[in-house]
Amino acid sequence: MQDETMSAWRWTGTGRPLDLQEIPVPEPGDDEVLIKVRAAGMCHSDVGEIDEPSWAATITRNPITLGHEIAGEVAAVGNEVADWRPGHRVGVHPLGRTVPGYSRDGGYAAYTIAPAGDLVAVPDDLSHELAAVGTDAGMTSYHAVAGVAGVRAGMRVGIIGLGGLGQLGAQLAVHLGAEVYAAEVSAEARALAASWGLAGTVGSADDLRGLRLDAVVDFVGAGTTTEAAVHAIRVGGDVVMVGLGAEHTTLTTADVIHQKARIHGSSGGTREDIEAVYQLLASGTLQPALESISFDEIPSGIDRLRAGTVRGRLVVRMAP
Amino acid sequence: MQDETMSAWRWTGTGRPLDLQEIPVPEPGDDEVLIKVRAAGMCHSDVGEIDEPSWAATITRNPITLGHEIAGEVAAVGNEVADWRPGHRVGVHPLGRTVPGYSRDGGYAAYTIAPAGDLVAVPDDLSHELAAVGTDAGMTSYHAVAGVAGVRAGMRVGIIGLGGLGQLGAQLAVHLGAEVYAAEVSAEARALAASWGLAGTVGSADDLRGLRLDAVVDFVGAGTTTEAAVHAIRVGGDVVMVGLGAEHTTLTTADVIHQKARIHGSSGGTREDIEAVYQLLASGTLQPALESISFDEIPSGIDRLRAGTVRGRLVVRMAP
Repeated sequence: MQDETMSAWRWTGTGRPLDLQEIPVPEPGDDEVLIKVRAAGMCHSDVGEIDEPSWAATITRNPITLGHEIAGEVAAVGNEVADWRPGHRVGVHPLGRTVPGYSRDGGYAAYTIAPAGDLVAVPDDLSHELAAVGTDAGMTSYHAVAGVAGVRAGMRVGIIGLGGLGQLGAQLAVHLGAEVYAAEVSAEARALAASWGLAGTVGSADDLRGLRLDAVVDFVGAGTTTEAAVHAIRVGGDVVMVGLGAEHTTLTTADVIHQKARIHGSSGGTREDIEAVYQLLASGTLQPALESISFDEIPSGIDRLRAGTVRGRLVVRMAP
Repeated sequence: MQDETMSAWRWTGTGRPLDLQEIPVPEPGDDEVLIKVRAAGMCHSDVGEIDEPSWAATITRNPITLGHEIAGEVAAVGNEVADWRPGHRVGVHPLGRTVPGYSRDGGYAAYTIAPAGDLVAVPDDLSHELAAVGTDAGMTSYHAVAGVAGVRAGMRVGIIGLGGLGQLGAQLAVHLGAEVYAAEVSAEARALAASWGLAGTVGSADDLRGLRLDAVVDFVGAGTTTEAAVHAIRVGGDVVMVGLGAEHTTLTTADVIHQKARIHGSSGGTREDIEAVYQLLASGTLQPALESISFDEIPSGIDRLRAGTVRGRLVVRMAP
């Protein structure tokens, strides 16, 4: 593929729209893999990278191709790579040795590079789109719900927000055997959840108050929702913070203390989390609402994420 | 003691100063003990009960004698009490079956009643004053530091505030083998701590930032101190909230999440916590700064707690 070029949507600085650049197809290093991108999930943090200096400060290269939810096919491997061969279907752990879209070029391009150790095999019966969403949105939800909140059969659990991550979190909590109550402001999103086996859905996190739940996972983080979660748990219950909706979260000091609340910040997850999510996606246990768009539609996808008008998860389907 | 009366400082409603009333010496029920109060610790929550409707809402009787840190001698026992006899030196678990100063008459009187199951034996070599302080301030500090924060040898620990509870928490953390950093605004209180074996003392919780501590216990709760604690821990570290200094606590959402912070509300403790504290007080391992005042000085003690001018712990020493 030497001397070939490809189009990539690239970040060139805070406040600037993504720039469509023609750049060389990269060559994998000795322990790296070249992936032909087949699907790339879009994430609200893309908007953060573009709009907010605090996010942009975490980007270590300029220009850089965005896109950190990546699935595709191995196209070439480095000299030291033994486990992967061209044609293998893979997802990329977004928080591995380096971070696509932050410290190396990401998935909004025909090809991308990943360290071989960051790859996860995609089951044959799992689509590239679902495999892409499984990496970040899936991993993060799974880690928060199954890992940090420790949801298991018999628990009574609250899920705040049924967006890209929350829908997966709610379906997972039901699958794990919990009695699940979801809070979601959008009537449309609540309607979508009607068939998931939830014990109840409410229109505001404040409506969970007094349910004495064992754990509540806040996928919104609107500044007031974590306080609502503290009011929704039993004494000694767990609150897991995942959503970054507002810069500041305000809590009533005495309520945290007298509830003996345990409030956990949760971010990211492990390769094992992604593998578990892939099984649940392949079996149909998790059925996230997806909307596929084309490579050319990435800028309008960013605009829609910024405007908050996306339901479910937006996935870029790349030409095969 | 039938028909005897005693003086008691009693709460009669929000916003009113304590009222000195002459009331009958109470009679113990079948499973209760009459205690001749020898020392009663004063607590900032006394001010809350008097000044703030939200605290007053937790008081279930009016009038009621305040004072929930109680030590003294058993004066009489009910018919079903087998474990305690007149003359036994005892402390009272403040969060037992009922709560002195909230749901039954407390210790600002010559005598008080307690359920036999809520008593803790006071070692011979422990003063009544220390035994009183050991019940609530001691128990709460011990529970937060040894229990919730799980402080043990080799840990690096922050203590925010060296007031009544924080001084005990800091000394305990050192005793447990931790490397302890304390933040305290008062230069006087910092000077007092110079001999405790702390690894460092700073003038503001913000100065703990970046120390990557395993755990931080916030005995202040000034609204901003818990955020400072989040910045002082390592990724995945623990923050324990104990102090009720401000009504609201504000956190930076992304910092909690990316630090994978575990924030625990801690209140109260167990009889076993009090027993452990009594051993540490009797051995001199814990040496809280105390100031003894007389029964008549209780109202001025309240004023000083309200003004924030008390260092260490204020204890009412009752006439023998």
